Amino acid sequence: MSIVNRQLRLKTRPEGLVQRDNFDLAEQSVPELKDGEVLVRVLYLSMDPTNRVWMRDIPQYLPPVAIGEVMRALGLGRVVQSRSAHYAVGDLVQGITGWQDYLVLHESAKGYVRLPADPGIPLPTLLGACGMSGVTAYYGMTDIAPTQPGETLVVSAAAGSVGSIAGQIGKIQGARVVGIAGGADKCRYLVDELGFDAAVDYKADDFKQQLKAATPDGVHVNFENVGGDVMKAVLSRMVIGGRVALCGLISGYNSGDKPGDDYGVFVMKRLRMQGFLVLDYTKTKEAVHAISGWIREGKLKTEETVAEGLENAPVVLNRLFDGSHRGKLVLRVDGKG
Amino acid sequence: MSIVNRQLRLKTRPEGLVQRDNFDLAEQSVPELKDGEVLVRVLYLSMDPTNRVWMRDIPQYLPPVAIGEVMRALGLGRVVQSRSAHYAVGDLVQGITGWQDYLVLHESAKGYVRLPADPGIPLPTLLGACGMSGVTAYYGMTDIAPTQPGETLVVSAAAGSVGSIAGQIGKIQGARVVGIAGGADKCRYLVDELGFDAAVDYKADDFKQQLKAATPDGVHVNFENVGGDVMKAVLSRMVIGGRVALCGLISGYNSGDKPGDDYGVFVMKRLRMQGFLVLDYTKTKEAVHAISGWIREGKLKTEETVAEGLENAPVVLNRLFDGSHRGKLVLRVDGKG
Repeated sequence: MSIVNRQLRLKTRPEGLVQRDNFDLAEQSVPELKDGEVLVRVLYLSMDPTNRVWMRDIPQYLPPVAIGEVMRALGLGRVVQSRSAHYAVGDLVQGITGWQDYLVLHESAKGYVRLPADPGIPLPTLLGACGMSGVTAYYGMTDIAPTQPGETLVVSAAAGSVGSIAGQIGKIQGARVVGIAGGADKCRYLVDELGFDAAVDYKADDFKQQLKAATPDGVHVNFENVGGDVMKAVLSRMVIGGRVALCGLISGYNSGDKPGDDYGVFVMKRLRMQGFLVLDYTKTKEAVHAISGWIREGKLKTEETVAEGLENAPVVLNRLFDGSHRGKLVLRVDGKG
Repeated sequence: MSIVNRQLRLKTRPEGLVQRDNFDLAEQSVPELKDGEVLVRVLYLSMDPTNRVWMRDIPQYLPPVAIGEVMRALGLGRVVQSRSAHYAVGDLVQGITGWQDYLVLHESAKGYVRLPADPGIPLPTLLGACGMSGVTAYYGMTDIAPTQPGETLVVSAAAGSVGSIAGQIGKIQGARVVGIAGGADKCRYLVDELGFDAAVDYKADDFKQQLKAATPDGVHVNFENVGGDVMKAVLSRMVIGGRVALCGLISGYNSGDKPGDDYGVFVMKRLRMQGFLVLDYTKTKEAVHAISGWIREGKLKTEETVAEGLENAPVVLNRLFDGSHRGKLVLRVDGKG
């Protein structure tokens, strides 16, 4: 009985938005397992802005995905065959699964987390608030640029998977939290459902005026996910000595354009900016423990948008950039209810 | 007996390099002193890149110099008349004197340092290594981004007033120090006279290759004075987790162009950048004490380029941007030998 594995392999590097035909949908038989290997059925794929960066042939923190290679992505799967004493059939596995239906994993592979068959948390939440997105928000707000009570925090892409958690952690820290998001619906969501103090619509004509009105004492900490003009507007509101936790620059991920960033404001306002990546935090237990605790206590709300179908991955990824999702965007690939 | 004070007043805001006719040379009689006032004869003016920024009508850390106002500048003068118990005739005074021959100063004015008539240090060195330039270098290298022994420090504008001191402090800290300067003469000066481990000519066609060869272990700390393409090249050599002490961005001070800065590298390499201004360090005694000690011990070499004539100030300032000086650029305004 041969199992067919579908894989999305990078065919050509996208220009601008990702197109379906930038990828080949290949099918191959899953080989027989060797000692120490397990077969993992991928259930959910994490759709992350950094995926788009991995497709680009530019210097970055990991090698770009090579032409012909299965697209790299974080995912969550279940062990369906095991020739390893470390993994039982039924276990969940989180780690780099790639855009495919099945993954053959050796028990010695690094970067994979084994979870019990029933982790007590919905699987999309595991990939989101308790996964890379939440852990990123946690370390950005605790290690890179924590807020003091009464300070003003501005989070961009605040309705997204990282920003929504970062802003809520700011509230837990006692900050005044202002979120930047696209459209009135998301802004209402931030204030009414997540408890932000204010929200500003970057698509509004009077975005800068709104931002100014929402930050009467200036901005002490900027948790930045977007870059470009949105970040520029926030930097113009920073207080002297403000801090920037630089998490991402999603506004530039689809384009190779030279950005109009300007280091000058960092001198004028004596700002500190620190870039960070979640992969530097190898011990994420503290973060996951804190986040799941806050969820149980009702201090942290999570939301996921679930799309369907492995073959749709290239198109679904674009939703990260057009703003048509809220919270964590995941792709269900196993087709079951 | 009336004393004539010549003043250079900003007439029009320069575009690009400063022109002499951006200033009016006005003459006025020095008024009679009131109680608590002293008359200071300006001896030397400190020529600083930040002067050029002050001429521009853009948001900055101090108000721009207004049209019609005496050009703001740091200087060193001597008390020639006193109606204050705090200042004796003959005392030296360092502070904002402006581009003029005489300054009427009230004893309560803040930001002025009284020095004895004979401070035991040449006056241009007082304005340079023991003045704002040296103090800037000191806090950048001790408070903002100190180096650990064996780390690689890259300093841009390394033959200038701040860079030459910052690099030498890096050597005192035990770092491998690489200076970036324009032309073979300055590069030789950095290595042969100041003891830098290597120097790289940013005007050379193979600048980037030179920089790579001079930093085989990457760059741990960047003391940045220049910005633009020079900084971009240095950032491309940073190690993961590197630190940037952002002191100045002189490459952009003459132009209003949008710079091609890119925050992306700060994420990819998890860099920390902190802008700073010497004016935040109000207690500079520690710095001046350390610097003058190193000078006496022969660990720190200083150099000044002395130009002459108040009326030449606008043109002399441009020498900061064309690279035709070494060390601290000062302007002698009292015309005496």
